[in-house]
Amino acid sequence: MNLKKFKFKHQLRVRSYEVDWVGIVHNSVYLQYFEVARIEYLKHIGIEVSYKNINTKSKVVIVRNEINYNHPAKFDDLLDIYVRISEIGTTSFTFESIILNSISKEYISDNISIHVWLDEKTGQPVNVDNRFIEIVQNFEGLKFK
Amino acid sequence: MNLKKFKFKHQLRVRSYEVDWVGIVHNSVYLQYFEVARIEYLKHIGIEVSYKNINTKSKVVIVRNEINYNHPAKFDDLLDIYVRISEIGTTSFTFESIILNSISKEYISDNISIHVWLDEKTGQPVNVDNRFIEIVQNFEGLKFK
Amino acid sequence: MNLKKFKFKHQLRVRSYEVDWVGIVHNSVYLQYFEVARIEYLKHIGIEVSYKNINTKSKVVIVRNEINYNHPAKFDDLLDIYVRISEIGTTSFTFESIILNSISKEYISDNISIHVWLDEKTGQPVNVDNRFIEIVQNFEGLKFK
Amino acid sequence: MNLKKFKFKHQLRVRSYEVDWVGIVHNSVYLQYFEVARIEYLKHIGIEVSYKNINTKSKVVIVRNEINYNHPAKFDDLLDIYVRISEIGTTSFTFESIILNSISKEYISDNISIHVWLDEKTGQPVNVDNRFIEIVQNFEGLKFK
Repeated sequence: MNLKKFKFKHQLRVRSYEVDWVGIVHNSVYLQYFEVARIEYLKHIGIEVSYKNINTKSKVVIVRNEINYNHPAKFDDLLDIYVRISEIGTTSFTFESIILNSISKEYISDNISIHVWLDEKTGQPVNVDNRFIEIVQNFEGLKFK
Repeated sequence: MNLKKFKFKHQLRVRSYEVDWVGIVHNSVYLQYFEVARIEYLKHIGIEVSYKNINTKSKVVIVRNEINYNHPAKFDDLLDIYVRISEIGTTSFTFESIILNSISKEYISDNISIHVWLDEKTGQPVNVDNRFIEIVQNFEGLKFK
Repeated sequence: MNLKKFKFKHQLRVRSYEVDWVGIVHNSVYLQYFEVARIEYLKHIGIEVSYKNINTKSKVVIVRNEINYNHPAKFDDLLDIYVRISEIGTTSFTFESIILNSISKEYISDNISIHVWLDEKTGQPVNVDNRFIEIVQNFEGLKFK
Repeated sequence: MNLKKFKFKHQLRVRSYEVDWVGIVHNSVYLQYFEVARIEYLKHIGIEVSYKNINTKSKVVIVRNEINYNHPAKFDDLLDIYVRISEIGTTSFTFESIILNSISKEYISDNISIHVWLDEKTGQPVNVDNRFIEIVQNFEGLKFK
């Protein structure tokens, strides 16, 4: 992943309870970090994320996660999480994310997550919402299709 | 992944607090489930996993996780987590895992995780421990190299 | 709390990711253990706990938790969690719980939690459900009022 | 607890995965919030909190938590966590904390936690460190004994 392609980053600090018995952030916690950053990205570009929306209007599910762990994050580390939507297909879209240590710039981890748009009633994949595509394209300055 | 290749499974029940605001098990919790099952696998084949070992003798780190989410797990679901070591390389080895609903047999999720053996002092990759290879080969009935 | 008063226990094993950077179960994880055990208690005595029920019919909220940490639980420890409802008032009821190490019988922790019954629409406290009181009284062999 | 007595607050935002199946922050997550705020308090007044310190020099354990849940925190809520050390005894000290919604000022929750100073070798309670007492007294403008 090329850092120059990212137009958004979210910053957070590693918390005590996220550190595991080996003294580093637990491998499952990164998925929490990536989700926090994706949601801040969506809020930033103007897409409402709320309990109500999540449970009524939109029905977007995550179908795949890939995480590489390059360098361990540790207690009190300040992290920059870069996020972008790198691809929008017919019924799915892809987030790419990179975590760097804000101070040392060490490459901590990266993530690809794939999300599918579902019909609320049938649960079957449907076309990605047009307004969503438009907002993302405007922000990213890309034409996905 | 072919279920017939697995010689070990671990069973657990979905807990209330693992269910997220959409009413299904949160995507990060599956990494906890897979880790629980990998540790039970190691204990089962005769490899000691303990706080002391983890922090002194062995220095094995996870470098990659891939998770597919096929069907959501829900509160109180009983899950079968199948685990096996599918590959041992020079300095790394690979776990494959599948989660099925114990009752309905629905295919919930699968995971590939890659683990690297490190020198405790230098932090550089070293050869996978010979005794580890032997124990795994005996259990799996495979010859990895 | 007197162990002899408890008619129900639930057993679980400490998982790797529940252990914190000091090598013991994190103080917040005990609240997860106590909740797991309370839910198993309710299921055991015949009260349905489900995502649907939780979000539509019943509206019971937790208003207070007290936890004493006597002895740390560690990785792979097998724990017995004793649970009982010790009091039912007009609009609230109280759970008492104790965690013992299943093998060594060390007294790990105890918990008192207070739960209030709310009207779904107004959100105001209402009388504890009569059927609930009856089921609990039958199981505990007590008369609460 | 009297808000006017607090000289420190830490702010954080509720994350998606901290919200439970009922749509509110899970009761165990508040203990994570309180711990984050306590650690920020300690850092703020000049006490080093680090993985190394936690595991070698200081041996301070939590022996009791009391939490009142007054009003549920929800997704994306901005929270102010007020923290102070309200008491220092011979071998123990007490933190008081209050969570308010930063915007609406609703009183979300409060917490009392009791911490005991232990001898690293014997594990028995010892006198609270003098430098710790001095730093806290200077910051709080109080004389504890």
